[in-house]
Amino acid sequence: MYYAGIDIGGMSIKVGIVNENGEILINRAIATDSSSGFSVMVSNMATLIKELLLELSIKENDLSGIGIGIPGVADSKKGIVTSAVNIGWRNVNVVEEFHKYFKMPVRISNDANCAALGEQRFGAAKGKSDVIMVTLGTGVGAGIIIDGKLIEGNGSAGAEAGHMIINMHGLPCACNGHGCWEQYASATALIRQTKLAMAKNPTSLMHDVFKEKGKVSGRTAFIAAERGDRAGQEVVDEYISYVSVGLIGLGNVLHPEVFVIGGGISHEKERLTAPIKRYLDNYIAISGFYPEIDVVPASLGNDAGIIGAAALVM
Amino acid sequence: MYYAGIDIGGMSIKVGIVNENGEILINRAIATDSSSGFSVMVSNMATLIKELLLELSIKENDLSGIGIGIPGVADSKKGIVTSAVNIGWRNVNVVEEFHKYFKMPVRISNDANCAALGEQRFGAAKGKSDVIMVTLGTGVGAGIIIDGKLIEGNGSAGAEAGHMIINMHGLPCACNGHGCWEQYASATALIRQTKLAMAKNPTSLMHDVFKEKGKVSGRTAFIAAERGDRAGQEVVDEYISYVSVGLIGLGNVLHPEVFVIGGGISHEKERLTAPIKRYLDNYIAISGFYPEIDVVPASLGNDAGIIGAAALVM
Repeated sequence: MYYAGIDIGGMSIKVGIVNENGEILINRAIATDSSSGFSVMVSNMATLIKELLLELSIKENDLSGIGIGIPGVADSKKGIVTSAVNIGWRNVNVVEEFHKYFKMPVRISNDANCAALGEQRFGAAKGKSDVIMVTLGTGVGAGIIIDGKLIEGNGSAGAEAGHMIINMHGLPCACNGHGCWEQYASATALIRQTKLAMAKNPTSLMHDVFKEKGKVSGRTAFIAAERGDRAGQEVVDEYISYVSVGLIGLGNVLHPEVFVIGGGISHEKERLTAPIKRYLDNYIAISGFYPEIDVVPASLGNDAGIIGAAALVM
Repeated sequence: MYYAGIDIGGMSIKVGIVNENGEILINRAIATDSSSGFSVMVSNMATLIKELLLELSIKENDLSGIGIGIPGVADSKKGIVTSAVNIGWRNVNVVEEFHKYFKMPVRISNDANCAALGEQRFGAAKGKSDVIMVTLGTGVGAGIIIDGKLIEGNGSAGAEAGHMIINMHGLPCACNGHGCWEQYASATALIRQTKLAMAKNPTSLMHDVFKEKGKVSGRTAFIAAERGDRAGQEVVDEYISYVSVGLIGLGNVLHPEVFVIGGGISHEKERLTAPIKRYLDNYIAISGFYPEIDVVPASLGNDAGIIGAAALVM
């Protein structure tokens, strides 16, 4: 069985043909040319799928479906993208448009949902049925899988875990709330926290790391902490407590078997996930009754988008 | 079709026979005698079911199942109550024990889950498939229904929405967390908030309400506010903002069609739910994309427990 997975991003559109084991047999990226408009963009993606099938000598009839990850608000039941600012789509029926080129199941979902599905079926949470993937990037995204099924909420408006309020009198958020989790746990937030700590600690090794790398990033404090810098370690510890506080909230609501951590910060791997796991273990142990929740870094990397999109139609 | 619903509480055990329309045909309560031990308690419940069937002239073969709401930690998949302190149960296999008396499906769940299921099938959220019921009582409980199915989490450890953290540097909680939602949005919290405001406002009408009723309750501030008391209104407004902050978090994670509000405070009906609805409407409107979430008071009252328990086996 073969499936097409499309990972649409603001810069590039990645298209791959995936088998039932979640292996990408072939893939190719094209630049995201949103100026060409919705119909032309879909036409280009359809052409690319047909080309890739040809190269693999796979007949179109042997393609079982097409899954598409959307960088924005996608109503998966209706097949409509309500708004995807980065690619200029607004209220477009993606499934209908693809059906002009392919007579087979076509499904869309938000890209965070696709990544979660990819990790659950073929990645870090393989074999688990209750999984939440949390992406620590520019914001904090999430994908929720219960009993092996994506949970998207009414109108696909759920899984916006970055806007759980963890500090109600805290920092303002673009969503118009105050104290949203992503204001504390995103990569953006970590960079802000790092800069604040650097300003307060002029002798911290974080300044050296900054000079080496040329910029302050989500890695700066982690690298300094690894070198024994106390101020860097404090930034890391505080950041980990912020991530953990949100995971405790999510855990109390949905208690998955595992949290998969993705996004740029997850490249820290166990330096990030091990202390979060300890934080959650300590919290859950108090109750004395509940199963622990595993915490693991995402494993599919950049392929998660294509594989997860393909998994939408498996 | 007939179903038995059992609502076990710390003071009394209510048993009812319910039809497929969620109507209680007969019900009776017995005192909770936890000193008699688990086996005797189950035996008494079994006897009561048989008596009620006899009174209705319904044959045991026509009973399709037995559902039981547990005031504690219940692993519904295993049929085991891990801990229910109020009734002295710990690690007991309830389903197995009932099967000694009845050869039919027996299911257990936490009482908050049962109430949610009752309201979704036959009460305030009838006809909706994505429903969260939040109970504002001594603590804050929740029951989550997605696609018409109870979502209980791994080991039935989810739906503990009262322990979402909404104020991470805030009030300590028995769960060992800080700033849990129930520290702000429970009836217990409202009473504390009311007492604090009374101490600060010696001329508030809340003092008159207290004298009339003989105690400070979750109603005190609502009654004073109704009479035009400013301090009382401020307590109500603040309390509603606390409830709403948690609902926004839950809404961002799961975006149900409706929040059903239960527990003692929900007797305020629209005085409580209308301002919460406005709060959520204002928040959701900002996004411009997402469907609204309805907010309604629970409608089954004391019957929710029996009806919801019976719904476990429908």
